[in-house]
Amino acid sequence: MSEPIYDVLTIGNAIADIIAHAEDDFLVKEDITKGAMNLIDAERAEHLYKVMGPAIIASGGSAGNTAAGVASLGGKAAYFGKVSDDELGAAFTHDMRAIGVAYDTKMLDGTPPTARSIIFTTPDGERSMNTYLGACVELSPEDIEEDKVAAAQITYFEGYLWDPPKAKDAIRLAAEIAHKNGRQVAMTLSDSFCVDRYRDEFLELMTSGTVDIVFANESELKSLYQTSSYESGLDAIRQDCKLAVVTRSEQGSTVVTRKNTTHVDASPIENLVDSNGAGDAYAAGFLWGLTNTRDLKTCAKIGGLVAAEVIQHLGPRAQSSLKELVEQSGL
Amino acid sequence: MSEPIYDVLTIGNAIADIIAHAEDDFLVKEDITKGAMNLIDAERAEHLYKVMGPAIIASGGSAGNTAAGVASLGGKAAYFGKVSDDELGAAFTHDMRAIGVAYDTKMLDGTPPTARSIIFTTPDGERSMNTYLGACVELSPEDIEEDKVAAAQITYFEGYLWDPPKAKDAIRLAAEIAHKNGRQVAMTLSDSFCVDRYRDEFLELMTSGTVDIVFANESELKSLYQTSSYESGLDAIRQDCKLAVVTRSEQGSTVVTRKNTTHVDASPIENLVDSNGAGDAYAAGFLWGLTNTRDLKTCAKIGGLVAAEVIQHLGPRAQSSLKELVEQSGL
Repeated sequence: MSEPIYDVLTIGNAIADIIAHAEDDFLVKEDITKGAMNLIDAERAEHLYKVMGPAIIASGGSAGNTAAGVASLGGKAAYFGKVSDDELGAAFTHDMRAIGVAYDTKMLDGTPPTARSIIFTTPDGERSMNTYLGACVELSPEDIEEDKVAAAQITYFEGYLWDPPKAKDAIRLAAEIAHKNGRQVAMTLSDSFCVDRYRDEFLELMTSGTVDIVFANESELKSLYQTSSYESGLDAIRQDCKLAVVTRSEQGSTVVTRKNTTHVDASPIENLVDSNGAGDAYAAGFLWGLTNTRDLKTCAKIGGLVAAEVIQHLGPRAQSSLKELVEQSGL
Repeated sequence: MSEPIYDVLTIGNAIADIIAHAEDDFLVKEDITKGAMNLIDAERAEHLYKVMGPAIIASGGSAGNTAAGVASLGGKAAYFGKVSDDELGAAFTHDMRAIGVAYDTKMLDGTPPTARSIIFTTPDGERSMNTYLGACVELSPEDIEEDKVAAAQITYFEGYLWDPPKAKDAIRLAAEIAHKNGRQVAMTLSDSFCVDRYRDEFLELMTSGTVDIVFANESELKSLYQTSSYESGLDAIRQDCKLAVVTRSEQGSTVVTRKNTTHVDASPIENLVDSNGAGDAYAAGFLWGLTNTRDLKTCAKIGGLVAAEVIQHLGPRAQSSLKELVEQSGL
C-alpha cells in the first residue's frame, strides 16, 4: 500500500444550486416537499424557475460540497461528477479547481445540460431542493479513475447516486478498487426519502462491507431502520457498519462505533440563514479530521464547526477559509 | 401629462456578477485597482476567472441593481439593458422579471456573450470590479422604448454607460423623451475613474439640464470638481443641478438643493461583508421615496437603510424584502 495522495475522494451528482428565499405557503402551493430533495424533470425545472424569486447561483452537489470543504480545510481532495459543456458546467468546474480539488471527469458535449437544483430557503433556514439531474444521468463506471481511488485514504459517495441509472455500478467499482488498495469507503445516506427509495440496497452496502463509514442525519437514520426512536437507530447502525456518524442539527452529533457512543454538542451560531450544505460541510470536517490524525470526538467537533459556518449564509459551501477557522478553534 | 405607470425606469450595463473573496495582496499581484470598476477585455476576463477562488454568481449591473431595489421596495420599476441569449443572460432576465421589473430589451443572439464582472471582495468589505462589457456594447437608441420612458416618473441611468459606444446616444434620446413628457431624469456618476474619463460630458449633462438629479459618492464628487474638499464639491454641485445626493459610506449621506444642505447619518450595521451594490441600493431607496411622497430627508434615510441591508451579504441585491424592511422602520 503506497502513500495516499488524497485525503478524501468524493463522488456525487455535480449540480449548480439556484437559490432563493421563499415563504412556506409557496412550497405548499407548488407542491414541494419541505426539507427534501425532490427529483424533477426539465419541464418542472423550467416552471419552478419561472415562479421563483430573484436567485443566486452557486456550485453545489452534496459530495461536491464535501470535496470543496475538505480542500478549504487544507486537505487534499479529489472529485468525480458529471457536468456538461455549458456555462453552469464551466462554473462548477472552476469552483472545484479554484479551491484545489482534483477534478477531471469528462464533460458531456452539452446535452443533457449541467444538472441544477432549484432551492427554496424558507425563513426558518430550511432548504427544499428540486433537482433536475441533467448530465448526472451519464455518470458511469468509465468515470472511475482508478489511480485516484487507489490514492485516496477515503472514497466517499452520496446515496443520491442511486437515482441516476449507471452511477451505482460506478460506486461498486470504486469501492472494490479502494478496498483492494487497503483504503476505506464512506457514504452519506443523503436524504430520508432517498433512504426510503433504496433502503435495502443501502443496508446491503453496509452489511456486505462495501461501505465502512456511514454519515446520516437523524431522520435518515430513522428512515433506514423504520423506527421512531433515535436510540434504536443508533443500536441498529452499530451492528451494520464499523463507524457511523449521525447529525442532529442544533442538537449536535453522535459518533457510533461497535462499542462506543460519543455525543458532541453543536457549534453555536448567530444567525441561521440557509441549512443547504450543512450535512456536506459536517462530513468534510469529520473526514478531514479522520484523515489528519484527529480522534473521533475532535472529528465530530470539526464537523460541527464547519457546518456552522456554512449555514450562516446563502449557498452550500464555505465563504471563508475553513483552514483558518479550524486553526483559530484549536481543534 | 398622463398618470405615470412606473416610479422609476433605469438604464444601464446588464451584467452578471461573479463574486469571490480575495486578499489585498492578490489585487496588487493581479494589478487590479482596488475599489474601482476596471474595464477588461475577454482575454483578461478569462485570466482573472482562472486565478479567482470559488465564486457565486448573482445578477448585477449598477442601474439593474437599482431597478431591482425599487421593485423590492414595492415600487413600479422598468429597466433597459442588453444581455445575450446565454445562461447568464437568462439568469439576468429571470432575476429582473422575478422581482417585478418590466424588462423587455431585445437580447443579442449569443455574440458577444452577456457581460460579466469578476468581483473580488477584500476582508475590509470593499469590492473591486473587473468588467467585460460583452453584449452591453450593443445598447443603442433602438433599445429606448418610448412608451416606458414617457410613463416613468424618473428615468435614471448610470455614468458607466459612457463606456460602451452607442449607449450615450440612447441616454440623450431617453432624456429628451422624458422631459417632453414632463418627467425627471437622474444619473449616477458611477465611479471616480469613470468621472475622470467623462468629466466634461457629465458636467455638460448637468449644466444643460439633460439631468435633473445626480447621485454620487464622495470620491466621485471630488473627482468631478477636481477638489479635495467635500464642502467645495457640495458648493459646486449645488450650482450645476437641481438636486444632488452624495453618499459617504459609514458617514451617511448629504442631500443638496439650490438652497439647502441636509445631512443624514448612516444606518447601523452588524457586519460589513461586501460593499458591492451599496450605492445602487441607496439610489433605489432614495428614488422610491422620492416617487412615493417622502420628503428629501426621509428619502435619504430610506436609501441608507436599504444600502445597509445589501452590504451585509455577498452580492449586490437585497436578499430579503425591502418593502418589509422599510415598513418595519416606519419610514
